[in-house]
Amino acid sequence: MTALPEAGATVGTLALIGVGLIGSSIARAARRGKLAGRIVGCARKPETRAKCLELGIVDAMFADPAECVAGADLVILAVHLGGYREVARRMAPGLKPGSIVSDVGSVKTCVFRDVAPFLPEGVHLVPGHPVSGTEKSGPEAGFAELFDNRWCILTPGPEAEPKAVAKVAAFWRAIGSNVELMEARRHDLVLGITSHLPHLIAYNIVGTAADLETVTKGEVIKYSAGGFRDFTRIAASDPEFWRDVFLNNREAVLEMLGRFTEDLIALQRSIRWGEGDKLLQLFARTRAIRQGIIAAGQETPAADFGRRPATRG
Amino acid sequence: MTALPEAGATVGTLALIGVGLIGSSIARAARRGKLAGRIVGCARKPETRAKCLELGIVDAMFADPAECVAGADLVILAVHLGGYREVARRMAPGLKPGSIVSDVGSVKTCVFRDVAPFLPEGVHLVPGHPVSGTEKSGPEAGFAELFDNRWCILTPGPEAEPKAVAKVAAFWRAIGSNVELMEARRHDLVLGITSHLPHLIAYNIVGTAADLETVTKGEVIKYSAGGFRDFTRIAASDPEFWRDVFLNNREAVLEMLGRFTEDLIALQRSIRWGEGDKLLQLFARTRAIRQGIIAAGQETPAADFGRRPATRG
Repeated sequence: MTALPEAGATVGTLALIGVGLIGSSIARAARRGKLAGRIVGCARKPETRAKCLELGIVDAMFADPAECVAGADLVILAVHLGGYREVARRMAPGLKPGSIVSDVGSVKTCVFRDVAPFLPEGVHLVPGHPVSGTEKSGPEAGFAELFDNRWCILTPGPEAEPKAVAKVAAFWRAIGSNVELMEARRHDLVLGITSHLPHLIAYNIVGTAADLETVTKGEVIKYSAGGFRDFTRIAASDPEFWRDVFLNNREAVLEMLGRFTEDLIALQRSIRWGEGDKLLQLFARTRAIRQGIIAAGQETPAADFGRRPATRG
Repeated sequence: MTALPEAGATVGTLALIGVGLIGSSIARAARRGKLAGRIVGCARKPETRAKCLELGIVDAMFADPAECVAGADLVILAVHLGGYREVARRMAPGLKPGSIVSDVGSVKTCVFRDVAPFLPEGVHLVPGHPVSGTEKSGPEAGFAELFDNRWCILTPGPEAEPKAVAKVAAFWRAIGSNVELMEARRHDLVLGITSHLPHLIAYNIVGTAADLETVTKGEVIKYSAGGFRDFTRIAASDPEFWRDVFLNNREAVLEMLGRFTEDLIALQRSIRWGEGDKLLQLFARTRAIRQGIIAAGQETPAADFGRRPATRG
């Protein structure tokens, strides 16, 4: 994509459809940076609406998407992917001409399938994906620093207006993120390996461990520091969120999974036949990737992950 | 096992065969707790011997295992599993009657196979495994707090003298660990799922990612925060160490791997056929394990893992 035009980071009214971990973190970061004159949110559950108002992170909450987006300059969908179609259909009548619709979903091709068809003429679609998060969910779990120094990938279609793309890019930069533009299909492939497959594998190994009759759940928990623990954090992520990711990025995930399994079977064979050299070769090779991640500032090199064990009672 | 007799935690001379991450951490922790009158170490490489003396974590260093263990009351093997047989054979002539030989290896049945046959009459074997570590290696990587509040599993054979077992248990408790006794075969099965399989999976996924021609290594590194990052830390562990673990715990690892693959194929099928309910069921179930680990004090519940993103430059 060619260079984007200059654009200010501030918007008049920011509407967040869904105010969970990500939505509430955007609200907090937008507040912190004074990026929106008014922040409104939409949530189905009355208790979520009450909680958001109580937390003071929005100016108003709505149950109806169309009412929420009425007058909004920037609308960000922050609900699960499975809800996109319904939300897009319901909010469409409220969208004002010239407004921008964006989102934070982990799969991007499906935004063009599920959201684009409902948008009125003159409304700009600029899908986005902040590559950050925690295993927590809900508006209480958010924090303004969630996106600081992380990547936010925007995947506008070829027909997107550069000004609208620039606006969303400026907004995310002001929120603290580094913005990257990418084609939606490529995004889904890249994230398939860097995020979706790791989550699937983590869910699977924790499930396998839970099913072992020969090893008790107590033992799995007790000796988790040996490596298992890191998988459980990932496998504690929001179940519905991840179901929707796998259902909506099916092709890329199945492709990655096929390669992963193929490699794993080869590894299994090396263990069975005692091929120490082959094992060593793989294990030595993977160290370089880690060093690259630390060098890229996406991780701390601290031996203990920055965690110190709890002091003994 | 029945209750152990009382035993003091201190030893006259502590000999560490291998002074890498674990060995040097034991030396530091023993110093901190004033647990040994004298600490000696054995290392093959002259530069490791020089480094250990320079760090001031030992009183003397030796190249020859027999010289190192001469006069030692407690000998702890802290070399890779693949070196056990050779080290045991070479140190055996130096062992004094009544001394205790222990180790820190991640597989325990092989200690009885590779070390026990070489021990002279009157020398006690009490294999051990501190379930802690980092992905770093070498004497500089160690720190005294590595074992604090972590588990140390001892796997003495049925013929072990309770007094010797009690001595090693007291030593590890004084080092900061919680000590557990377990049958060696059970240990290898439990650690097979909580540690060995997670490492194998992590190595495999990082390898799969590195091989993807369609996604560049730069992209994998850039967007690693989405989940992949946590795998790379594990997959940056010492390659030779892990090769030896897999070659020496072959049966348990292959058994766990078989179950894991079986489960993964089922999961793959659910994604292919769009079985959202089955995915949701698994993902919801794995959350409970995570909560158990946090409740057991083996992990921090902090959303960001206790890490704060680096401040922007």
